[in-house]
Amino acid sequence: MRALQTYRPETAAPLNQLANILLQGPSTLSPGERELIGSFVSSRNNCFYCQTIHGAVAAHHLGSEALVADTIRDAESAPVSEKLKALLAIAAKVQEGGKQVTPEVVARAREAGATDLEIHDTVLIAAAFCMFNRYVDGLATWAPEDPQFYRERGEFLAHHGYPKPA
Amino acid sequence: MRALQTYRPETAAPLNQLANILLQGPSTLSPGERELIGSFVSSRNNCFYCQTIHGAVAAHHLGSEALVADTIRDAESAPVSEKLKALLAIAAKVQEGGKQVTPEVVARAREAGATDLEIHDTVLIAAAFCMFNRYVDGLATWAPEDPQFYRERGEFLAHHGYPKPA
Repeated sequence: MRALQTYRPETAAPLNQLANILLQGPSTLSPGERELIGSFVSSRNNCFYCQTIHGAVAAHHLGSEALVADTIRDAESAPVSEKLKALLAIAAKVQEGGKQVTPEVVARAREAGATDLEIHDTVLIAAAFCMFNRYVDGLATWAPEDPQFYRERGEFLAHHGYPKPA
Repeated sequence: MRALQTYRPETAAPLNQLANILLQGPSTLSPGERELIGSFVSSRNNCFYCQTIHGAVAAHHLGSEALVADTIRDAESAPVSEKLKALLAIAAKVQEGGKQVTPEVVARAREAGATDLEIHDTVLIAAAFCMFNRYVDGLATWAPEDPQFYRERGEFLAHHGYPKPA
């Protein structure tokens, strides 16, 4: 991803701005919850790099790598709030396709206390990861395999955000 | 889409900036070719609004609504260049998933004269439309049905670009 950004800085700027606003900007969803949604969607798109780096950022925010792994394996049985489970169910539908988002899955999120803006942002986060995942994998980006790389990079991104335009 | 942008202007800014750079910024691919890739991917995501508005922008640039319709129906037999056919084949793979982009489909584009940057931008355009399509359909955006609306809006966007931040 960083190689792609160096290669095409003109497009890197809005992509990083979008990630910063969606994942770390002001929101009633915590950064950990939003990064978890991103890692969850990336796992369903089978994108190793995005799943791992955003899972590491989420784990840093939430204080638990096991929580991230549990959520990706089976969100419904994971120890997260009912509201987050409902938002993850929306994200799973978005990953399949925009038209798969049903009134029922949106109603479930509303009943669990999600606001319209939280539902909007969940749809856009999930949609944005469907872009990021395809961008990274479509260009067969090289990805490191060492878990420690992701832990350290995840902690850095959690504190400093995604690269901002110069 | 415009209602979504009014609802969440913070995210509309980078989304429009990305669309402007990818579709209308400096490139060796013409704006018409790039809008055609976007409309083609949107048709495969079954997103009526994006397919129609970006098809209208492409038709305005290329001077033919039939060319856009022919390309969406069957790109391989459409009267477009071998290079554009090869790039559309890459875009079709990106729509399925990032890992579907094979060395063979990239090699075909290179042999047809596509540059690395043209291939990069095709992958990112296709990935970005996988986001835009899910965003629009995931939130069940209302879309006008009158073809004349899209012709007029398409001509406007072709000349003025996508909305820029204030």
